[in-house]
Amino acid sequence: MEKVAIIGVGMTKFGEHWDKGLRQLIAEAGAMAVNEAGIDGKDIQAIYGGNMSAGRFIGQEHIGALIADAIGLTPIPSTRVEAACASGGLALREAYISVAGGTYDVVVAGGVEKMTDVYTEQVSMTLGGAGDQEWEVFHGATFPSLYALIAKRHMHDYGTTEEQMARVAVKNHSNAAKNPLAQFPFEVTIEDVMGSTKVAEPLKVLDCSPITDGAAAVILANERIARKVCEDPVWIIGSGHATDTLALHDRRSITTLDASVLAAKKAMAQAKVTHKDIKVAEVHDCFTIAEICALEDIGFVKKGEGGKAEEDGMFDLNSTVSVNTSGGLKACGHPVGATGIKQAVEISWQLRGRAGKRQVSNADIGLAHNVGGSGATALVHILSREAK
Amino acid sequence: MEKVAIIGVGMTKFGEHWDKGLRQLIAEAGAMAVNEAGIDGKDIQAIYGGNMSAGRFIGQEHIGALIADAIGLTPIPSTRVEAACASGGLALREAYISVAGGTYDVVVAGGVEKMTDVYTEQVSMTLGGAGDQEWEVFHGATFPSLYALIAKRHMHDYGTTEEQMARVAVKNHSNAAKNPLAQFPFEVTIEDVMGSTKVAEPLKVLDCSPITDGAAAVILANERIARKVCEDPVWIIGSGHATDTLALHDRRSITTLDASVLAAKKAMAQAKVTHKDIKVAEVHDCFTIAEICALEDIGFVKKGEGGKAEEDGMFDLNSTVSVNTSGGLKACGHPVGATGIKQAVEISWQLRGRAGKRQVSNADIGLAHNVGGSGATALVHILSREAK
Repeated sequence: MEKVAIIGVGMTKFGEHWDKGLRQLIAEAGAMAVNEAGIDGKDIQAIYGGNMSAGRFIGQEHIGALIADAIGLTPIPSTRVEAACASGGLALREAYISVAGGTYDVVVAGGVEKMTDVYTEQVSMTLGGAGDQEWEVFHGATFPSLYALIAKRHMHDYGTTEEQMARVAVKNHSNAAKNPLAQFPFEVTIEDVMGSTKVAEPLKVLDCSPITDGAAAVILANERIARKVCEDPVWIIGSGHATDTLALHDRRSITTLDASVLAAKKAMAQAKVTHKDIKVAEVHDCFTIAEICALEDIGFVKKGEGGKAEEDGMFDLNSTVSVNTSGGLKACGHPVGATGIKQAVEISWQLRGRAGKRQVSNADIGLAHNVGGSGATALVHILSREAK
Repeated sequence: MEKVAIIGVGMTKFGEHWDKGLRQLIAEAGAMAVNEAGIDGKDIQAIYGGNMSAGRFIGQEHIGALIADAIGLTPIPSTRVEAACASGGLALREAYISVAGGTYDVVVAGGVEKMTDVYTEQVSMTLGGAGDQEWEVFHGATFPSLYALIAKRHMHDYGTTEEQMARVAVKNHSNAAKNPLAQFPFEVTIEDVMGSTKVAEPLKVLDCSPITDGAAAVILANERIARKVCEDPVWIIGSGHATDTLALHDRRSITTLDASVLAAKKAMAQAKVTHKDIKVAEVHDCFTIAEICALEDIGFVKKGEGGKAEEDGMFDLNSTVSVNTSGGLKACGHPVGATGIKQAVEISWQLRGRAGKRQVSNADIGLAHNVGGSGATALVHILSREAK
C-alpha cells in the first residue's frame, strides 16, 4: 500500500451563513485547500465528498457531481459518501483507501452541510434520519433524547455528574475562544451550562452541539507527490471504520459505543501507536456526554472514569491529551457532513504548528474520531508528522 | 493492482413492494448474493451500498450502517455512496477500488431504493434532486422535461423520430417479458407507445422508466479468493467514472453526455477491448431517448445514428449487441439506487449462461453503463468471463 499524506487543508468559518449556499461553502473550503497544497486543480484526480442530508436540507442530491461542478473540477470522478454525522470521516477514509491502493495519486476529501435553510424542527427530524427511523424517530426520539438516555445510564452506572458534563462544554468553549473559525468563540462557566435551558434531561442547551453551516477540505497525496510538493506533510498512519446496530436499544450496552472501540483499536494497531503517543485529539462531542464516552471508548481512560478525568482537567489544552482544541462539535460547530474533515484540518494545523493561540506544544501524533448517529458508525484516523 | 471478480449476485423482484421496506429489500438481495457466492457472512470484510434518496423517500439516512445491520454484518465497515440514479454503479466502482487496491479481499456492493412509500408528486420532486435544484427544479423542470429537451434537440439535429424512440421501449419490454424479476414483463407495440399518455412532449408514458422498489447485490473478491471459491467468476476488467455540470443548460451539447463518453473510453481502455468485443450491454435507458444517446456516447454507433440503428434492430436480443436484456430501466424497473448493481447482476447472468429465455449466445464480454441525473455522473464497467 502507498503511504498517504495530507498536503493542504481548508475550511470555512463555521456558523450561520445566510449569504452562502452549499456549493459556495464547499468551493471556498476546496479552493483554500488546493491553494495551500500549492498544486494546480488539474493535478487532482478525484473527489470524495461527505454530506449527510442535502436531500432534506436543501432539496439537492447528486452531491458528488455538484462538488466537482462547484469547484470547477469536472470531469474527474467525484463520489459522495454518507454515514450521517460521520460522513466527513468516511470521506477521509474512502479517499485514503483510493490513494493507498494506488487508484489515484492526488484527491480531495471534503465535507459540507448547509443546515440553516430549513426550520429548526425540520433540522431535528432530518438529523433523526441518523438513527432508526422506524423504531426511534417514529416513536418520538430525537438525538438529544437518545443521548440523554446514554447520559442518565452513565450517571447511574458510574456516578458521572451533570457538573462533569458541563466541564466538557467549559473546556471546549475555552478552546473555541482561541479559534477564529469557531461558531461560538466565547467562554462559558459551569454555572452558565448548569443554568441553561433543559433540552432533554439531564442535557441542557450548553451540553448540545449547535446547528451549523460549513465546509472543510483536505488534499491527500501519495508519498511521491507529497514529498515533491509539500514541506510539512501530515501522514495518515492509521484508519479504522466500524459499524453497529442502527438503533440504540439493540446494543449490548448504551454507554459503550462498540463501533468507536473497534475503529480506534484498528486505527491504532495500523499506526502502531499507544494512547501515550497521542498528544492531541478531536473527538465526537455532539453532546458533552458523547465526549466522555468517546474518551473512554478510545481508551484514554477506563470506562466510567471519563467524567472525573474531565473534572481533573486531563483533556484541557496542553495537559495530558489536548482534546477538541478546535472547540469541538460543541463550540466550533457541527455542520454534520463537514465535521469529520474539520477534525482532520484541526489536527493538521496542530501537527504543523499552525494552530495559533490554541497550539499544543510538541504535538507530533494526533487522533480524529467521528461518530454517526448514536454510534452505528465510527471512524478513527491517526495523523502523524512522520510517515510510517 | 489486484484482479477483481464478481463471485455471487442477487436481486429482488423489481416492482411495488407494499409488504417490504428498504431493509427487507437489501437483506433479501444481499442474502441471495452471499448464498450464491458460497461464502460465509464472516468472510465479508466491507459493504458498499448505493442509495439515492432514502432521506426523502423514507426519512432515513445512515444507509451504510442500516445495510450492515439489516444483513447482520455489523461491525464491518459499511459505506453508502450516492450519485443520484448512478448510485449503484458508483457503489460497484468504490467496492472495486477497495479490492483492487488491496484494502479488502471480499466485499459486498449493493444498491437499494424504496420509492413507493410517498406520493408520486413527491417522487418527482425527490428525483429532481438529481438535477440542479437551484436552476432547474426551482423553475419547474422535472426529469421527463429535461429528457424531453434532449429528445427534441436530437430530433432536430439528427432526424430521430418518435417511432424510433418507441422502438427502444418495444425492444426492452420484449426482453423484460423473458425476465421473471422485471417490473413490467409484457410486450408492447410501437402503436402502444405512440398512443400512450403524453408526459412531456415528445415523451409519452411508455418512453419513461417507472417508479420502482428493489435491491440488488454482488459479491466482489480478489483473484486468490475468487479462484478458490467460485467456478465461474465474472471479472471486472474495466471501470470508468466521470462527471459533468449538474445542470443540463451548462453543457456544450445537450445530446451528447460527455461523462458517458469519457467513462466509456476509460473503462474500455483499461479493459483493452473494442466495441466489437462487447456482445451484451446494459445501458441507462431512464427514457427511450437516453438509450439512443447512450449507445452513441459509448460509441456503438456514430452520434445521430442511434435512432436508425434501433429501428434496424441492431440492439435486439442476439443481434449485433444485445442491449438491455434485463428489460432495462424502462421495463425491468428503476429503483434508482439499485439500478447500477442490477446491471452488473444481469451482465453476470449473461456471461455465466444463466439468463434463461433472454440468454445471449456466446456472451463473453459485457458492458454496464449507469447515468446520474441528466448526465452529471456516468459510470461504465466492463465485465468478462476471462481475467485480464
